[in-house]
Amino acid sequence: MQALRNLSSDLEPLALFLASQLERVSVRFDEHLQCELPPVSDLCAHVERYRGKMLRPTLVLLCGLASSAEPDALRLNDGHITLAAVSEMVHMATLVHDDVLDEAETRRRGQTVNRLRGNEAAVILGDYLIAGAFHLCSQVKQREASLVVGQASMDMCAGELLQLHNRENFSIDERTYYEIVRRKTGALIAAACRLGAIGSGASAEVCDLFEQFGMRLGTAFQIQDDLLDLTGRAAVVGKDTGKDPEKGKLTLPMIHHLLMATVDQRARTLGVLEDVARHGPGAAVELATVLESTGSVAHAKGEAKRLVAEACAMLSAIEPSKARELLEHLARAAVDRAY
Amino acid sequence: MQALRNLSSDLEPLALFLASQLERVSVRFDEHLQCELPPVSDLCAHVERYRGKMLRPTLVLLCGLASSAEPDALRLNDGHITLAAVSEMVHMATLVHDDVLDEAETRRRGQTVNRLRGNEAAVILGDYLIAGAFHLCSQVKQREASLVVGQASMDMCAGELLQLHNRENFSIDERTYYEIVRRKTGALIAAACRLGAIGSGASAEVCDLFEQFGMRLGTAFQIQDDLLDLTGRAAVVGKDTGKDPEKGKLTLPMIHHLLMATVDQRARTLGVLEDVARHGPGAAVELATVLESTGSVAHAKGEAKRLVAEACAMLSAIEPSKARELLEHLARAAVDRAY
Repeated sequence: MQALRNLSSDLEPLALFLASQLERVSVRFDEHLQCELPPVSDLCAHVERYRGKMLRPTLVLLCGLASSAEPDALRLNDGHITLAAVSEMVHMATLVHDDVLDEAETRRRGQTVNRLRGNEAAVILGDYLIAGAFHLCSQVKQREASLVVGQASMDMCAGELLQLHNRENFSIDERTYYEIVRRKTGALIAAACRLGAIGSGASAEVCDLFEQFGMRLGTAFQIQDDLLDLTGRAAVVGKDTGKDPEKGKLTLPMIHHLLMATVDQRARTLGVLEDVARHGPGAAVELATVLESTGSVAHAKGEAKRLVAEACAMLSAIEPSKARELLEHLARAAVDRAY
Repeated sequence: MQALRNLSSDLEPLALFLASQLERVSVRFDEHLQCELPPVSDLCAHVERYRGKMLRPTLVLLCGLASSAEPDALRLNDGHITLAAVSEMVHMATLVHDDVLDEAETRRRGQTVNRLRGNEAAVILGDYLIAGAFHLCSQVKQREASLVVGQASMDMCAGELLQLHNRENFSIDERTYYEIVRRKTGALIAAACRLGAIGSGASAEVCDLFEQFGMRLGTAFQIQDDLLDLTGRAAVVGKDTGKDPEKGKLTLPMIHHLLMATVDQRARTLGVLEDVARHGPGAAVELATVLESTGSVAHAKGEAKRLVAEACAMLSAIEPSKARELLEHLARAAVDRAY
């Protein structure tokens, strides 16, 4: 992944090793979805092209390495590879269904499944990926893994439903925003980190610690994603931007802005938001500018950085290692990215 | 369930016991989906009203009873109740997503989730149910259960994708029809029967036998469902009928009819099918009549009955019991129903 570039030279060997292990994860992912029916395998082949940052599998592997008491060469086992593939499969399922819900047309610079094959194929393909993830997860020796993945998946859906419920709620507060984000994004990233530790046979305390690291990182990651939707350009981000205002989804910068703006400014912004939600993008460009007037982009950036600092502080309780260093590097990169 | 009415008096005590156990299954189902967020719990409450025949949980419990070597009172354990709830939860997830795909407006004489709350809520709710099913399944002591449920869920999606791929394929053959039906309906009913035996700690051979019983029963059940779509009345069936021709879905009676009809009749039927698929129900009533001219309703009925006979024959390998008798009764009722 991109975050693994520009590393200090002492982390490079680990990054190379990680890249080779992620290759194994990709193979396991593809093999598990194989089906002798062409209508199924064709769709799966399309989804393989979605693979992007591989954040969740990277976290499974790095947390696996960082939490293991084994000597270096034995720190990653076959279970880690499987769990990493599972985490990516659950994530991919949500991407495919999200694209249906968002009526998105592009993803990773290619066309979405719903755009190419229709909503029905996309809904069923997402279900196939979820089922595949659970089936694969049932094959590792640690039973806790299935419980963790099942719980995280339920949390994700609950978060999505809460988000949907708050669509066009222009007075949504930060507390509700965080409740949504912790569930819809934090839960799976926290689970990925815990799965790494579970794969290493770490103690319950160490597993909890990695889970908490992941929850903070995941929340920060989503804040950055929401910022990019409001301020990024589609060509750089690699997917449609400005979708949140169109869908009447208020995210952290906007919630902060509406709280801090003057009465007049607040009324003007609400006017634009309602207009964009009803009639499409048109005036959306204005929104990015208006957020600056209340320091709301800086506020959201600050919150993301605070969460990453908290996440990294949690890791100080575990033994120092190259893997721990790389996790910290990756956490900081998650809120510094423009894609 | 309705199939448990009109029983010979010696099966009534078992049917009453089963009803009390299905009540426990319903409680486990509802409890497991509970969520402190009202937007989630409201939707789950709506889904509880979908609960209909409870065929899959009934099969888990009856196969559990019929495959157990324990004395009567101990034949059902807590794991059976959980696995029965899991089977219904997976089924419910597919109903919710099917209703989105079919744009259905009514289900069990009530409005569908997609109709009431929109497609987005329905897609996410279906995902929540799948995740809940896997999470619950990971809690039983037999690990094989999660593998069985995961595999059946993958098969179901593969079957749905194959079906979608063959939409408006007016030259689909019986082989492809059966491939679709075995996966999309047979797989979960077969899994339910296997889960019952797994819950009883039965041998691999006995588990296989119950699975094969379920596959035949499930296939017969779907043939009957397809017949009802073509020949039933919505008020009796409890959901919209005539959806298959509208969706360009050719099922067994129609496939048989097109094979057996005269050249002229075949051309006329194809004309009606294309018309219904493009412009909606209008001429659909004609189709039910036309199927009679080639004996195609009788053919499909015959196939369903043949499969049920095969299913019942499989059970002759296990020890006779009231549970086995009730399974046979239920299998026959599955192809005799008008709802």
